[in-house]
Amino acid sequence: MRLASLHNGQPDGHLVVVSSDNLRFASAANISPHLRDALERWTEVEPQLRALQAQLDAEPGSTACNTAPFNPGDCGAPLPRTFQWLDGSAFLNHGRLMERAFKVPAVPDFETVPLMYQGAADDFLGPHNDVPLPAEADQIDCEGEFGVVLSETPMGVSALQALQYVKLVVLLNDWSLRAFGPREVKSGFGFIQAKPSTAFAPVAVTPDELGTHWRDGRVHLQLRVQRDGQWIGHPHAGEMHFHFGELIAHAARTRKLSAGTIIGSGTVSNADPAAGSTCLTEVRMREMLTDGAPRTSFLRFGERIRMEALNDEGLTAPFGVLDQQLVQA
Amino acid sequence: MRLASLHNGQPDGHLVVVSSDNLRFASAANISPHLRDALERWTEVEPQLRALQAQLDAEPGSTACNTAPFNPGDCGAPLPRTFQWLDGSAFLNHGRLMERAFKVPAVPDFETVPLMYQGAADDFLGPHNDVPLPAEADQIDCEGEFGVVLSETPMGVSALQALQYVKLVVLLNDWSLRAFGPREVKSGFGFIQAKPSTAFAPVAVTPDELGTHWRDGRVHLQLRVQRDGQWIGHPHAGEMHFHFGELIAHAARTRKLSAGTIIGSGTVSNADPAAGSTCLTEVRMREMLTDGAPRTSFLRFGERIRMEALNDEGLTAPFGVLDQQLVQA
Repeated sequence: MRLASLHNGQPDGHLVVVSSDNLRFASAANISPHLRDALERWTEVEPQLRALQAQLDAEPGSTACNTAPFNPGDCGAPLPRTFQWLDGSAFLNHGRLMERAFKVPAVPDFETVPLMYQGAADDFLGPHNDVPLPAEADQIDCEGEFGVVLSETPMGVSALQALQYVKLVVLLNDWSLRAFGPREVKSGFGFIQAKPSTAFAPVAVTPDELGTHWRDGRVHLQLRVQRDGQWIGHPHAGEMHFHFGELIAHAARTRKLSAGTIIGSGTVSNADPAAGSTCLTEVRMREMLTDGAPRTSFLRFGERIRMEALNDEGLTAPFGVLDQQLVQA
Repeated sequence: MRLASLHNGQPDGHLVVVSSDNLRFASAANISPHLRDALERWTEVEPQLRALQAQLDAEPGSTACNTAPFNPGDCGAPLPRTFQWLDGSAFLNHGRLMERAFKVPAVPDFETVPLMYQGAADDFLGPHNDVPLPAEADQIDCEGEFGVVLSETPMGVSALQALQYVKLVVLLNDWSLRAFGPREVKSGFGFIQAKPSTAFAPVAVTPDELGTHWRDGRVHLQLRVQRDGQWIGHPHAGEMHFHFGELIAHAARTRKLSAGTIIGSGTVSNADPAAGSTCLTEVRMREMLTDGAPRTSFLRFGERIRMEALNDEGLTAPFGVLDQQLVQA
């Protein structure tokens, strides 16, 4: 099943079901006013949404459900705001490069305990919304990630049990301001200024929609990133060290996670430099290691970042595309 | 004006206005379904809520508004859940003692840039709710704090401008699990497992309700903490180093803060040891410094923590009392 939230002037948007070719949608307003509400009543709502999806896919020309062309430009994030956004750092290659870039000491239990910070969930950006930021001097960077959206998850859940609470999978760009990163890491209190609003691809999908690309609690797809049309990387997310169940169990050790909680994978990153990167700090760090100095600049106002997940045949995965321009706030 | 949210089986509770003696309430359901909604429409809603408050206070025996006895045991947190909870650490004495307790290096710009972490806002506890936690071995501790609740606050707001977005002041206990603290600080990513659900005193108040006790962006009241009836401390919150405007400006530097965002002061703490502490780790650290070893234990299941703010005459401030028992989850 594929879900999206259209901009409607309200902070939670208008929930729609998207056809299996991502070309049409049907309003789900009669089933649930918005996706956060649907996640809170998932057991009741899911069958109704799936029935609408089936109707939408079975009868392209039918008026049995009111369909309209699906325009990702009309979309907010699938969950435009939610009560919790916890972002892991489950690709060890990314963590190792960032430690070198930020000149911070290696975390000793890096391979056994996930790194995770809590981010702002009050104001997510849609896939084609401009990204307003205060200054280029803040060292604007992107981070391509996958995430999962949970139904209510109990405190103390195990890593294996945790996967049953994964209701949706999303693709996101965890926009980052690197000038604040080293200080905030050294403070020990995590990221506030280094993490402005996060942006999401238009379509959230149920895990079954990914077929064999969802297995072992991981998304087995490439994530391709382009900067003003130029390739930055296409690392494969199957290289994720901790799977999503492990990230959820880490987050839920001492508290329950309410419905609508989003857990991020952290920046998708491969040990193989030929895969490129989904963030520029990695690109710069690799240049530093091979050439002694970074050549790639951070982002400038007016530039665009495009992200999409690709399957083994190089086709765009059902999340659709993130394509955003940076603008001066 | 005094506001509270009664448990009603719904996650956002039932908004009520509380009389100026904290003895009666009137339902505000006809004005706004819950406090988070009211904060999103504050300009429209505030005059209606203030009119109800005036009616409630003017006519104790009247039926012009349906009043009933106010029982804090029926209350959830004033905002039972919200989209953002950002907790500063604005009492430098606390920060210095914690650095020693956690054996982490001093943060260099400690006196000029606030420490701040983002906490879980999806599931706050009411003032008399039990506190379910997984294990005493996690080193259960309390932290007494004040907080402010904001209307929508723009990115880049200055510290002085920021104070105009403070709509409510709250009293809270930032429950903490010290066994996870040092590792999470050293990770640089902030607190996840070290911070279970936060609890709030029953009544949120507009700043004017505090009179001269709200000035310079600080709450000039003592915060008294008792453990099973035994005094732990009563430090004065006027000693706050960064004021709330500075904390808000720090949080809003690269993102807007949505209506309902809560900003915490961090643990209220005085340099004078005679004031005692609002958390046990400080008590233990002071014992370590004077006697070479801590005598005070962390909390055990079955124990209670009571917190209340006191004015200069030793009377309970309008927030009411937090009094919670720890239980095995």
